[in-house]
Amino acid sequence: MASPAPSEAQARPVCYDIVIVGAGPVGLMLSTCLARWGYKIKHIDNRPEPTATGRADGIQPRSLDLLRNMGLKSAIMAHKPARVFEVAFWDPPASGNGIVRTGTWASCPDFIDARYPFTTLLHQGLIERVFISDLEKNNVQIQRPWTITGFRSNDGQDSQYPVSVDIEHIDGTAKETVRAKYLFGGEGARSFIRQQLNIGVHHKDPIAHVWGVMDGVVETDFPDIKMKCTIHSEHGSIMVIPRENNMVRLYIQIASSTDENWDPRRTATASDVQEKAKRILLPYSIEWESVEWYSVYPIGQGISERYTLDQRVFLGGDACHTHSPKAGQGMNTAFLDALNLAWKIHAVEGGLAKRELLETYEPERKSVAEMLLDFDNRYAKLFSQRPPAANEVQAASENHGTANEHADNAFIKTFKESCEFTSGYGVYYKPNVLNWSPDHPVQSSLIHPKGTRLRTGRLFIPSDVTRVVDANVVHLEQEVPLNGSFRIFIFAGDVSQSRQALLDFSEQLKRKWSFYSSHLRADIDNVSHHEQHNPHSLFFTLCTIFAAKRPAIEISRDVPETMARYRQHVYADDRFDHRFPDSKAPAHAKMGLCEKKGGVVVVRPDGHVGIVADLVEGTGTADALNQYFSTFCVKPLEAIATRI
Amino acid sequence: MASPAPSEAQARPVCYDIVIVGAGPVGLMLSTCLARWGYKIKHIDNRPEPTATGRADGIQPRSLDLLRNMGLKSAIMAHKPARVFEVAFWDPPASGNGIVRTGTWASCPDFIDARYPFTTLLHQGLIERVFISDLEKNNVQIQRPWTITGFRSNDGQDSQYPVSVDIEHIDGTAKETVRAKYLFGGEGARSFIRQQLNIGVHHKDPIAHVWGVMDGVVETDFPDIKMKCTIHSEHGSIMVIPRENNMVRLYIQIASSTDENWDPRRTATASDVQEKAKRILLPYSIEWESVEWYSVYPIGQGISERYTLDQRVFLGGDACHTHSPKAGQGMNTAFLDALNLAWKIHAVEGGLAKRELLETYEPERKSVAEMLLDFDNRYAKLFSQRPPAANEVQAASENHGTANEHADNAFIKTFKESCEFTSGYGVYYKPNVLNWSPDHPVQSSLIHPKGTRLRTGRLFIPSDVTRVVDANVVHLEQEVPLNGSFRIFIFAGDVSQSRQALLDFSEQLKRKWSFYSSHLRADIDNVSHHEQHNPHSLFFTLCTIFAAKRPAIEISRDVPETMARYRQHVYADDRFDHRFPDSKAPAHAKMGLCEKKGGVVVVRPDGHVGIVADLVEGTGTADALNQYFSTFCVKPLEAIATRI
Repeated sequence: MASPAPSEAQARPVCYDIVIVGAGPVGLMLSTCLARWGYKIKHIDNRPEPTATGRADGIQPRSLDLLRNMGLKSAIMAHKPARVFEVAFWDPPASGNGIVRTGTWASCPDFIDARYPFTTLLHQGLIERVFISDLEKNNVQIQRPWTITGFRSNDGQDSQYPVSVDIEHIDGTAKETVRAKYLFGGEGARSFIRQQLNIGVHHKDPIAHVWGVMDGVVETDFPDIKMKCTIHSEHGSIMVIPRENNMVRLYIQIASSTDENWDPRRTATASDVQEKAKRILLPYSIEWESVEWYSVYPIGQGISERYTLDQRVFLGGDACHTHSPKAGQGMNTAFLDALNLAWKIHAVEGGLAKRELLETYEPERKSVAEMLLDFDNRYAKLFSQRPPAANEVQAASENHGTANEHADNAFIKTFKESCEFTSGYGVYYKPNVLNWSPDHPVQSSLIHPKGTRLRTGRLFIPSDVTRVVDANVVHLEQEVPLNGSFRIFIFAGDVSQSRQALLDFSEQLKRKWSFYSSHLRADIDNVSHHEQHNPHSLFFTLCTIFAAKRPAIEISRDVPETMARYRQHVYADDRFDHRFPDSKAPAHAKMGLCEKKGGVVVVRPDGHVGIVADLVEGTGTADALNQYFSTFCVKPLEAIATRI
Repeated sequence: MASPAPSEAQARPVCYDIVIVGAGPVGLMLSTCLARWGYKIKHIDNRPEPTATGRADGIQPRSLDLLRNMGLKSAIMAHKPARVFEVAFWDPPASGNGIVRTGTWASCPDFIDARYPFTTLLHQGLIERVFISDLEKNNVQIQRPWTITGFRSNDGQDSQYPVSVDIEHIDGTAKETVRAKYLFGGEGARSFIRQQLNIGVHHKDPIAHVWGVMDGVVETDFPDIKMKCTIHSEHGSIMVIPRENNMVRLYIQIASSTDENWDPRRTATASDVQEKAKRILLPYSIEWESVEWYSVYPIGQGISERYTLDQRVFLGGDACHTHSPKAGQGMNTAFLDALNLAWKIHAVEGGLAKRELLETYEPERKSVAEMLLDFDNRYAKLFSQRPPAANEVQAASENHGTANEHADNAFIKTFKESCEFTSGYGVYYKPNVLNWSPDHPVQSSLIHPKGTRLRTGRLFIPSDVTRVVDANVVHLEQEVPLNGSFRIFIFAGDVSQSRQALLDFSEQLKRKWSFYSSHLRADIDNVSHHEQHNPHSLFFTLCTIFAAKRPAIEISRDVPETMARYRQHVYADDRFDHRFPDSKAPAHAKMGLCEKKGGVVVVRPDGHVGIVADLVEGTGTADALNQYFSTFCVKPLEAIATRI
């Protein structure tokens, strides 16, 4: 893009909805979401091209759900990534030399209800390119190699675009000043934006490490070379991660701040690391056919003290949190930072939510980063104390209870928390305006009905259902694409009992002051009848699920007008689920909702459950939802007030 | 490709392994397989570009398995095809006007153990392009628009390339004569090659029809527009097929040779068909937003009397069989014709099999075409006699028995046969040299052990297992890609009981006269240690499956040398299967093989079961396989003879 002539630029800078600095996972996820939803984006990165080798490469199960929800999973899987289903532990034998396998366990055991119970390992550059080509479809090009040199927020020059950003080609040959509604710093651990804002980094664990990491192709008789392995030997420790194209990644800890003579600038050559790996793996042999990438870097745990100061300039990803690569959480946490911010910006800028909604970004995501670091420490400590007995791992893997049910056995509890956390399903948001709790401003006896297995702030539970119009068997949690809409799942139970309640709910939604009708699309009269997800509103998609066999459901007879417009979102809860083998309506059962009376679940655009309510005759169900949305939406508050 | 100068061409024509005429489904499948396996191909088509609109578009479940086995499924699914899970029947009501839904049923019900229990609907041109881009990776370009003008087989000019083929640009501006080992005619119903060979077409059912077909986007309140529907009304009959991109295909029978005043050249305009569709669908409304394609064509059932005369010039696809589009079998039958021929040519030309193996192509595939036409007639007849009662459909859909078990109820029997046939899983090959039967030349008490649920000539049964080296959960039947190899599945049962039998089998395979060792790769000393599927032979891949949990299997201890080289083909049979919920080794159970002693299954390169044998100590198991292969392979016969 050619810059405007300097004089003109000074007079009338180009305006964007957002300037995004950094095209790693966090910046790309944010950019991709906002580009799809129609926002005008300036996205820069100071590297001349995407990541060539190395870096983060683990996609956790929950992130794969997210990528599928974005329609990007198949492009990722086309690269034939390695898939880690189990982790193996190797230790010195009780007597003698060398190493022996002391156990293996599932990285995402069966007690976690995951669609994809494995970690996907693929070179970060390939993942970045999947996002970049999606961005290009929406006419967003990453401007490279450009960097940010300064910014001013709320400088009083333009209330609509309150942020001014100075950017420059890295060789200094060109510069631009642009205005934006938002500025996002996804520039990594040494974030310029964070430094300019004088935001400090808090080090949770003062211990720092120097790591060596090597990607390459090897020939070895070590039997678990295709598995993720943690190997401890008298010669040191190593972590093995399988990769695509017969590659393997080895992480070796070269130094720790707990060592005598600790030097954070300690380094090692590739052949030092290869020699060390050879000694650690004895009695097995290992030879390198090629080395694709090798690096040594110091790393410490750290969390940025703030993620934003003014809800205009935001930080995310490594700019906010750094930690050891062992947990494989870097890219995943980055994705979810971006997702959390993206839909909130959309809700505010699209006219749904009050600007205060943006204040929930920092506490929600900072709390997750703190949990991650805290967990990482506790987990490592538990293992350094003693290796787990095989029967403990077995018990922990097979038991379907949640972590809380095992408070009596610290190992099982931590193991389960660990699995939930590293799979991504343990991430939860604490009670706030979005996530109902007994302290939520909305109080109604219909909210969070007894028996529900859904937990607000956690992810919606996956389930299989049959779509009524075409009899396709589908994954209910994936049926609404990542479109920035709240997903309102109306579990309708047995229609012979819930018919009136459904009708009443539909009628209430149609009232012009309801949360639903007060946020209709401006172009509603011109929407194609083929529009599946957002025929009425850009912020709500309604799904109706009956506890019945598909052929028993007749949309024209059983589905009230409001929901019937979402013809492709009417489902039969009639698919076998091995977790509820005796249930005739397993999706209702999985949610813990009554198979007769049903219930309504509001899922945030990022897949976390906001509120669960009974489905009842009269206005109660709609009242509860009206009040829930009125706590953060622009319009319904006064509308409800006028009604009362 | 530039043609050689005419004088040079006459002196020394360019030689190919095969000349393929026609780049529809049958030609493309054949070309793709042989190109991957290293053959030199001349592929021509008389159309200037791939199919633009219309034509066949149904991929049956078994074909989707095949496409996945070729690594092409995700490219197909990226086009977001429609998926048909159920078929709906609409008929005139008992009293009054219009139409009512009289029933629906699964197109691939649960009694069929299918990975993908639906039909995939996608424009043929998009499917063709997936193959064409795969061919381009192997440096095969379709030469268009070129046509065949003549050929001579066994003209005595060149015993290595006995077929001479004359081809020409359709505008006559260029021509070429080439030599080949084989010529394949996949040019459709009016095959030039078939006509030149004076091969007649036999019409099984003398009734011919004129069909109108229309693809387009509609607006309608007909509730089943996203389903496959068969609609009969007082105004005529129509078939509805959903398509990608909100399109729908309508088939309307315009005339039949059973009509008075039958005229095979009867035609109708697009608006005639639209008006007729409007009347048939009453009381529902239907309006066209766009029409992508419209055509009227006469069609009758027909089977080519021969598929080859000399095992050098072969026919396949529509050149061999034509039938009504209702069954949606055209493309699928074409794919399987090509697959059947491809691996046999490879086996012969690659030095594994005797030339006589090619003689099995015609009887195997012609028999399937006859079954298809015969089935089509019987099925239509049964329905014209009376509509099925809802409880019959229910009983037929849910019952897990095979068609044979329901000989007492003609409807259920035909329904089940229909589902098996249209899904592709009903296709079977009759006993011959490849498909063991009690009349097979090889006789041994170890063959086809009592209790096995595998049926020779039918497809291998799908099962989930855990790969030992990386703990990946995989589909066993998909683990060997379509590489032209026989797949030898060694179900090892309980290793504490089968250890000696496994060792003995391994030792026998290693003997240089065994079927296995007598067909080693010529380049065996230079094979990379990363080679997963064909480290020893291009024609055999060994898979070993233990009835044990994955962590209990140690390859270095439990897997004999021959099988251990296929490190990535060692599996644990430890995955839950809802069809055998109480089994600890569900894959063994599904095959009907002993969970203690195991058994060996030889699966042909096209996925059909050739022979099943007990796994026993001593030489018996290997003897049985040696004899099986010796009946059609080049080398073992004399080798075994010298041993005896």
